[in-house]
Amino acid sequence: MKKIIVGQSGGPTAVINSSVVGVYNKAKELGIKVYGMVHGIEGFLQEKIIDLDDYLSEEENIELLKRTPSAFLGSCRYKLPKIEEAKDVYEKIFEILDKNEIDGLFYIGGNDSMDTIKMLSAYAKENNKKQVFMGIPKTIDNDLPITDHCPGYGSAAKYIATSLKEIIRDNESFGVSKPTVCIVEIMGRHAGWLTAAAALAKTDDCKGVDAIYLPEVTFDIDKFIQNIEKLAKTKSSIVIAVSEGVQTSDGKFVCELSDSDRSVDAFGHKQLSGCASTLANLVAAKTGLKTRAIEFSTLQRAATHIASLTDINEAIEVGKCAVEEANNGTTGKMVIIERVEGSTYQSRTNIYEIDAIANVEKKVPLEWIDKENNTLKEEFINYARPLIMGELEPIYKDGLPAHLIRK
Amino acid sequence: MKKIIVGQSGGPTAVINSSVVGVYNKAKELGIKVYGMVHGIEGFLQEKIIDLDDYLSEEENIELLKRTPSAFLGSCRYKLPKIEEAKDVYEKIFEILDKNEIDGLFYIGGNDSMDTIKMLSAYAKENNKKQVFMGIPKTIDNDLPITDHCPGYGSAAKYIATSLKEIIRDNESFGVSKPTVCIVEIMGRHAGWLTAAAALAKTDDCKGVDAIYLPEVTFDIDKFIQNIEKLAKTKSSIVIAVSEGVQTSDGKFVCELSDSDRSVDAFGHKQLSGCASTLANLVAAKTGLKTRAIEFSTLQRAATHIASLTDINEAIEVGKCAVEEANNGTTGKMVIIERVEGSTYQSRTNIYEIDAIANVEKKVPLEWIDKENNTLKEEFINYARPLIMGELEPIYKDGLPAHLIRK
Repeated sequence: MKKIIVGQSGGPTAVINSSVVGVYNKAKELGIKVYGMVHGIEGFLQEKIIDLDDYLSEEENIELLKRTPSAFLGSCRYKLPKIEEAKDVYEKIFEILDKNEIDGLFYIGGNDSMDTIKMLSAYAKENNKKQVFMGIPKTIDNDLPITDHCPGYGSAAKYIATSLKEIIRDNESFGVSKPTVCIVEIMGRHAGWLTAAAALAKTDDCKGVDAIYLPEVTFDIDKFIQNIEKLAKTKSSIVIAVSEGVQTSDGKFVCELSDSDRSVDAFGHKQLSGCASTLANLVAAKTGLKTRAIEFSTLQRAATHIASLTDINEAIEVGKCAVEEANNGTTGKMVIIERVEGSTYQSRTNIYEIDAIANVEKKVPLEWIDKENNTLKEEFINYARPLIMGELEPIYKDGLPAHLIRK
Repeated sequence: MKKIIVGQSGGPTAVINSSVVGVYNKAKELGIKVYGMVHGIEGFLQEKIIDLDDYLSEEENIELLKRTPSAFLGSCRYKLPKIEEAKDVYEKIFEILDKNEIDGLFYIGGNDSMDTIKMLSAYAKENNKKQVFMGIPKTIDNDLPITDHCPGYGSAAKYIATSLKEIIRDNESFGVSKPTVCIVEIMGRHAGWLTAAAALAKTDDCKGVDAIYLPEVTFDIDKFIQNIEKLAKTKSSIVIAVSEGVQTSDGKFVCELSDSDRSVDAFGHKQLSGCASTLANLVAAKTGLKTRAIEFSTLQRAATHIASLTDINEAIEVGKCAVEEANNGTTGKMVIIERVEGSTYQSRTNIYEIDAIANVEKKVPLEWIDKENNTLKEEFINYARPLIMGELEPIYKDGLPAHLIRK
C-alpha cells in the first residue's frame, strides 16, 4: 500500500481519535501516506478528503489528538445502500479511490459502520478491485460480537463510575434531614454494558449504587417502587442506575410511559422526557420521597478528560493492527481484541471475518446479572474493571483540557 | 484557643473539604485540637461530634480529603431560629460548647450559614460568652458579597467550561447531516455566575457556546426562538447555555411554563421538567430542529476530579485565615478573598463584618453582560479565567478517583 484513507462513523467516543493515531503511526512506519475522510463515507462521496500530514506530522498534535473527544474527522450516520440497488454509489466510491490512488480504506465505527466495510469489500471482490477494506471497532455501547470488548467502552465506563462516586458522595451529604432518591439514566438502548458499569462505583471508599436496571431484564414498575420503598426504610441516600432502554413486559420503553396525549406542556406541545425523569416523577408521586433525575447524556461518550489509558492504548493498537494486516493483503475483516488468559489483564489484537460481526449485537450475559439484588455479579466486575484502569493527563490550556481541531 | 470545632453547611462544593484541611492544618500549627460537627449545626445540637485527628493525623488522608467531593463532615440546611424566639436552642449550643471546652466554632458555608455565625456571635456578645465564631465562605453560586469570589466557584466553573468544550465537540461531529440544538442547563437560581462560566469554553481550539442566558436578564421566549432560527441558518451545531433561574417578564421561571394542569403523565401525575428540557421541547416544536437537553445537575458541584487548583488552594487559605484570626480574638467575621492588583492573578485573605454579608446576594454586574450578543464581556473573562487555573491530579484506586470518607 502506498496511500490509504481513514474515516470515522456513528456516535463518537472518548478514544475514537486514538484509533486514527494508530492508523497514522503504523502507516508512517510503513512509509504509507494517510488521508482522512471528513464526515465518513458521506463526506467521502462528496470528495471531502484531508491530508493527515497537515495535522499529525507534529508529535505535539498526536498527543493532543489522543486527548480530543468526538470524531476529529467528523462522523456520519450514512448507511450504504444494497449493492444491487445502487451500483452508481459504489462506482462513485471506487472512482474516487482510483482517482486518489488509494489502496486501502479503514473505517472506525460500530455495527452499521462494519456493514459499510462488509459491502465495500464484497463489491471489490465481485468486481476485481484491488483496494482493501478494514473495520476498526469503536462503540461506547460495547455491543459488537466476537471482540472481547470495544474501544470506547472503557472510557465511558470510567466516566460513569467516576461520576457516580461523586453523585453518591453528594447525595449522602445531607443525611437523614433530606433523604433523596437519585435516579441516573445511562445510555444503551438494547445492551446494558454501560449501565452495568455503574457497578464499578462500588469500591473500598464507596458503597456504590443501590440498584442497577439493565435493558436485558424486563422492567417491573411495581417491583421497582417496592424496592425503593424498602431501601428508604434504612437509607437516607438512594442512588439508582437505570438504562435508557429499560422496557416493561409489554415491550414499551419506560420513557414512553409518560408519552400520553395528556402529556402536553403549556404551549400545547407534546412533552418528551427521559427515562430517569419519568421514573423520578413516578417515585415522587407514589412514595412522597424527594427525587432527582440525572442524565449523563453525551458527556459519557465525550469526557476524554477522564478517559481510560487502557482504552486509549487499545484504540491505538486496533488502528495499528488494521494497517499492518491490510498491508499484508487482508481485506473484509474487523480488528478484534482478545483477552490473554492470566492473573493480570493483557490483551492482543486479531482479525475476524466482517460478515460475522456486521449487524450483530452482543448483550450482557444473563448469567452475569444478579436479578434478585438488581446488581452485577463478580464476573462482570472482573471483566470490566481492567478496562477502566490508567489515565492520560489532559494537556491544559487556559485552565481547560486542550483539543486538536480541523482548520 | 485550645479546642475548636468546624462544620460544613448548605450545598456542597468540590473544595468545601479543602477548607476543613485549612482549618485543621493551621490549628495543628498552633497546637489546637480540632473537632468536626457531623451534619453541621443540626448534628451539633445532637452532639454528633468527631475528633479530626482520627482521620487527618495521616498526611495521606489530608491529600485524599483535598480530592474528596461533597461535605466530608456531612452538611445540613438548618437555619437557626431568632434568638428571642428560641433561647433554649442557643443555650443548648453553648452548653455543648462549654461541656467540650470548645473555644471557637468555624462554619463553612454560604449565605444562610453566615447567618448562623452572625446569630451565634451576637448571642455570645449579649451573654458574655468567651467563644469566638468565624464564617468561612463556600458556594458554587459565587453570590456572597464583599469577597472577590467564593471558594467552590472556580472548580464548578472549570467543570462547566470543560464539559461544554466536550459537548460542543460532540455536537459538531455529525456536521450538516444532523444539525442539533443542544441546550445546557446550569445551576444558579438568582445569580448567573455559574452560567456565565460557559463563556470560558471559548478558547483557541473551541468556538464556544452560541448564546448564554443569565437570570440577571429578563428571558424573552420569542427572541430566544428567533436567535436560534438565525443561528441555524449558518450553523449545524448550536450549543446554548441557560441558567435554571431564567424568568420571563411576568416573573415566571421558564421551567414553570410547562407546569400547567395539562402537563400530567400517563399515571395522572404532574410532570416536572427542567428549564433546558422545557426549552428543548419548545424549540423542537417551533422550529422543527432536532434538539437535546443536558443538565449538569449535581455534577457541577461534585466533580472534584477536575477541580481548580487555584480554588483548592484558596479554600485552604480561607480556612487557615479563620483559625489564625480567631486565635487572635476575632469573632463574628467572615473570611474574604481580595484580588491583588497586578498583571498576574494573586489573591490574599482578609476578614469582614459578618452583618454585611449574611443574607445579601451578589449578582453578575449588568455592565459585564453583552445583552445584544447573549454573551459575557471581556471583563467577566478577566475576572473568571484565573479562578479555573491549575489542577490537582486525583489519586486513583481501582481505576477511579479515591475519596476520604467517615467511618
